Amino acid sequence: MVGSKPFNLSLYKLAIKHAAAAEETVNGMKISNERLEYLGDAVLGAVVAEFLFIKYPFRDEGFLTETRSRMVNREALNHIAIKLGLSKIIEEEYRGKNVGTHKSIYGDALEAMVGAVYLDRGYEFCKKFILRRIIIHFDLDSIINTTTNFKSKVIEWSQKENSSVDFRTVSIDGSQRFKEFVVELLINNEPVATGKGATKKKAEQEAAKNACEILNIAV
Amino acid sequence: MVGSKPFNLSLYKLAIKHAAAAEETVNGMKISNERLEYLGDAVLGAVVAEFLFIKYPFRDEGFLTETRSRMVNREALNHIAIKLGLSKIIEEEYRGKNVGTHKSIYGDALEAMVGAVYLDRGYEFCKKFILRRIIIHFDLDSIINTTTNFKSKVIEWSQKENSSVDFRTVSIDGSQRFKEFVVELLINNEPVATGKGATKKKAEQEAAKNACEILNIAV
Repeated sequence: MVGSKPFNLSLYKLAIKHAAAAEETVNGMKISNERLEYLGDAVLGAVVAEFLFIKYPFRDEGFLTETRSRMVNREALNHIAIKLGLSKIIEEEYRGKNVGTHKSIYGDALEAMVGAVYLDRGYEFCKKFILRRIIIHFDLDSIINTTTNFKSKVIEWSQKENSSVDFRTVSIDGSQRFKEFVVELLINNEPVATGKGATKKKAEQEAAKNACEILNIAV
Repeated sequence: MVGSKPFNLSLYKLAIKHAAAAEETVNGMKISNERLEYLGDAVLGAVVAEFLFIKYPFRDEGFLTETRSRMVNREALNHIAIKLGLSKIIEEEYRGKNVGTHKSIYGDALEAMVGAVYLDRGYEFCKKFILRRIIIHFDLDSIINTTTNFKSKVIEWSQKENSSVDFRTVSIDGSQRFKEFVVELLINNEPVATGKGATKKKAEQEAAKNACEILNIAV
């Protein structure tokens, strides 16, 4: 999958060891892929950042940041881990063990795999691995053109749940040039999330985005 | 400052060009350091992630993530930019221009400088630059041992402002093993921020942390 023989195979074995399947060592430490995932997440972030920086020389940092966060989100990585066949290796590994299903288990393992490749082969090799084996699977056009409208996601959800949705402006700060709105989203008159932004609309989107996370609304 | 002669000097010149001081090109684009800052932020994040990964082999990813976010926060980077003398170069650059003072202007330029070094000299050189010129300035012991108590920061602030602070539990989700509390922070009975966490205490800390950001309370 990495495209070359590993120098240190145990790193890759560790990469697919989810915390829920980890064995405890004598001193109570759990050996799992979580540290590798932390490292891989950071390296993946840097490589994707540079990829977009070069690919879109005339787009501003807001566009780059937003596109990057859509590429490295849990769901997108999970999807790619399945495409790469990492999910099958993990299922094999867990067979017979009572490991609860975990939504992001494959995406987490993919990040950990990136961490393993980085430690095993260094930055340049890992960058090529990410570009050729991960980034290639992204449908960038659809990622860029799909603006998730969090506000409408919350409204849809509330209709199903027979709940009311309201926004309330909590405060407006700043000078004439730089304004900051703080907006609150209420479900059945109960505050659920807040958002801030340079316009009321942006603050509402942000509040709706946070509400989707808090209420586990699929986006 | 970088420790070696630049290959491409214009990258470094761009790194200290804050958006507020940027000139507009004929087609209305503003040329500033914001794209470089985006890239530098990602590269810095990866290098700091690896630094901590290696330095603390027995600490879990929660510790590593939290320590990293304290190291790469605006205030910490601002501080280091001043130590490095980057602030002086920027002030010289802006002399006579009517650029409003911006809290994080030096830290932003430092991130952009990292982006410039990365593009100019590649990952390994940039990593050494970050380790030798940036990370060396961190007082890691104090970073690790200072747990910012956001709740007490908000309470202190509210006493100065003659305001009331209250927490309200909005919802408790999840099974017996995995609980998620959503807590809301109210200032003078007006909801300002929400937080979530596995315990009520953690959710309150998170809400207080968000409130500090929204209300610009120094932490």
